[in-house]
Amino acid sequence: MAKKLIGNAIVGQSGGPTAAINATLAGVIKGALECDAINTLYGMRNGIEGMLGERMIDLSKRFDGGNDLDALIHTPAAALGSCRKKLPNPESDKAEDIAFFEKVFEIFEKYDIRYFFYIGGNDSMDTVAKLSRYAEKKSYEIRVMGVPKTIDNDLVATDHTPGFGSAAKFVSTVITEIVRDCAVYTTKAVTIVEVMGRDAGWLTASAGIGKYVGIDAPDLVYLPERDFSMDEFFSSLEKAFEKHPNIVVAVSEGIRFADGRYVGEGTQSGSTDVFGHKYLAGTAKALELAVKEKFGCKVRSIELNLPQRCASHLASKTDLDESVAVGAYAVERAADGESGEMVLFLRVSEKPYEVKLGAKKVSEIANAVRKVPDEYINAEGNHITAACADYILPLIAGEAYPEYENGLPKYIVL
Amino acid sequence: MAKKLIGNAIVGQSGGPTAAINATLAGVIKGALECDAINTLYGMRNGIEGMLGERMIDLSKRFDGGNDLDALIHTPAAALGSCRKKLPNPESDKAEDIAFFEKVFEIFEKYDIRYFFYIGGNDSMDTVAKLSRYAEKKSYEIRVMGVPKTIDNDLVATDHTPGFGSAAKFVSTVITEIVRDCAVYTTKAVTIVEVMGRDAGWLTASAGIGKYVGIDAPDLVYLPERDFSMDEFFSSLEKAFEKHPNIVVAVSEGIRFADGRYVGEGTQSGSTDVFGHKYLAGTAKALELAVKEKFGCKVRSIELNLPQRCASHLASKTDLDESVAVGAYAVERAADGESGEMVLFLRVSEKPYEVKLGAKKVSEIANAVRKVPDEYINAEGNHITAACADYILPLIAGEAYPEYENGLPKYIVL
Repeated sequence: MAKKLIGNAIVGQSGGPTAAINATLAGVIKGALECDAINTLYGMRNGIEGMLGERMIDLSKRFDGGNDLDALIHTPAAALGSCRKKLPNPESDKAEDIAFFEKVFEIFEKYDIRYFFYIGGNDSMDTVAKLSRYAEKKSYEIRVMGVPKTIDNDLVATDHTPGFGSAAKFVSTVITEIVRDCAVYTTKAVTIVEVMGRDAGWLTASAGIGKYVGIDAPDLVYLPERDFSMDEFFSSLEKAFEKHPNIVVAVSEGIRFADGRYVGEGTQSGSTDVFGHKYLAGTAKALELAVKEKFGCKVRSIELNLPQRCASHLASKTDLDESVAVGAYAVERAADGESGEMVLFLRVSEKPYEVKLGAKKVSEIANAVRKVPDEYINAEGNHITAACADYILPLIAGEAYPEYENGLPKYIVL
Repeated sequence: MAKKLIGNAIVGQSGGPTAAINATLAGVIKGALECDAINTLYGMRNGIEGMLGERMIDLSKRFDGGNDLDALIHTPAAALGSCRKKLPNPESDKAEDIAFFEKVFEIFEKYDIRYFFYIGGNDSMDTVAKLSRYAEKKSYEIRVMGVPKTIDNDLVATDHTPGFGSAAKFVSTVITEIVRDCAVYTTKAVTIVEVMGRDAGWLTASAGIGKYVGIDAPDLVYLPERDFSMDEFFSSLEKAFEKHPNIVVAVSEGIRFADGRYVGEGTQSGSTDVFGHKYLAGTAKALELAVKEKFGCKVRSIELNLPQRCASHLASKTDLDESVAVGAYAVERAADGESGEMVLFLRVSEKPYEVKLGAKKVSEIANAVRKVPDEYINAEGNHITAACADYILPLIAGEAYPEYENGLPKYIVL
């Protein structure tokens, strides 16, 4: 047991929001309120960028006595705001890089910050790893913990990521509704639904789970883990038309041809984000045009877009409960002396579903992408397997509805 | 009081589905089960087109004792299937037109159909009007009733249409979530959300109601009732940027420039549906490109697309309750001797909200479009007024959730 480190704590949110990122924040707040080593928990507005400008909020005061935490759990997007800031290398000897870290640690000292919690995806774990390294180099006593979140479910080491279950519940529910909607007409038609997920097809895979529980699912599901072939797509469509006139297809935004070109490349903007990720748009649109030309039937493309990550009105109860738990657990571990870790889930049992909380050094995690494994994709590469549905189904279990006022959801603005 | 007409009944659904069209169907079934003049209620699959092929289902048997009606109420899309069939003129002397009506009435006689209920929008009321006229000409005793449904809320004579409240609840909720999501970053960005509604801006107007109940709403809302000016749009954006860096704009798919061109015209397919409606796509996309060129900032366009009309997972309780009631009321009126009518809502009081059921001859209703009135649009033409919010808010009141099984909504397949 490490010595008790008494001081203040700070928490931030980074990267794209999810419907569960505020549940994790609520968990960190809950953990901090209950932790006798933490005096005040600050929230940084807009992640580490906001902290540099000392744009902070006293969360211990705002949520004193646990008040309003339940409303925070159901609040969409990142209540503290977010940023996409890539930290310099802590070993760099460039003047501006050194100045950056000095500024960060000057603020830590000024506010006596001894605990740093960062809720985010791969890029945020990179931030956690770098801050840990710099703190060690500087011998500044601080415990830095990463708390995962991403609708992409693509972090290694953890069974799944907070936020994925709610996004998967929204995608699988809405796609069932779309399949029902498309089934009302008797004319030949193809509807192509584009799902988020640049390199990993977890969220697109969730579109297919209905097939294994007796409800409507898309006829075809294409993940970025397999090369996309237009010829095979056309022949799969022809086979599907033999069964019914209304075909629904789910595609990941990131599907590529065997030569590495993105399917949406013809329609994309070509710009990249600060991490060098190519900005994709229009994969479904590109397929819409191709199918229209080939089959001459009615074709519609639908991009599920932002609601996939912010639809708090249909969150997974399992996801929100786990997201709160993992946030509180990060505080607990830090208070116990751990640092430089990402907290995570380990699946103990699938039927019945049971997970336990754990943690791993971020240095072993950062910047790796966990893809959908082969056994979760069917042989034809155009749908998921039963094993994949078994993996996803427990994560979308239960409905966590926000409170409503005037017919609209209530939420917290910090 | 008209004489009691004993026989069978048939019900069909037509046009685009809504989240409430099956609630209305449940109301018709409920009414028919309770009506001693109706022996068997048939459902026509795919509207009048399916009836011509005698593709029918015995609904009295399927829902015997009211069993499963609750699940039907929460089932998305049109459970009986739909069609887009424009009937010929009953006064036409063309051989094929005469043959069409003779075939229809041959089926009526064969199944002893004395009640015909058609759930649909403007185009469906046209069907009701024509069948009524032909029945009169032929002296076939049948009572034909139209039951309104449309997410567009554009039927005249009725205070609002079944289906609108649920679509408005989904649009206003999701747009609030999108505004929260877009607010997480500090960089200058514009998000343009495209809402369904070709000629009437009711659904787009619903995107703006949050402004009047203290929750996040788009900065700008553009309805097709006003000419769209790119210059005024740009200057409204400049003003909005003075307040915050993240602007969200809601636009109707049908906005046009003063010269009549659709804003989405550059990106649309140019095809038309069987009623001659121009198929629109890409209004938000066209604006995205224009704003990107003008401001050089990040711009995203989002088409809310099909979920607007099929998101049964977030229906308005008021809408579903009223949709059931109006379906049952159509049966009641027909049993009382009325025919050739559309049932409707009359708003008795706004605060507290109270409606009563009524009816009007379809001949006075068909093919007219009810637009958003001037007093519901602000002077600048870029948002709604408080009066508009007062009109819409009661229609989205209450949450009607489906049952879930395995984390996914349960529904009926007929």
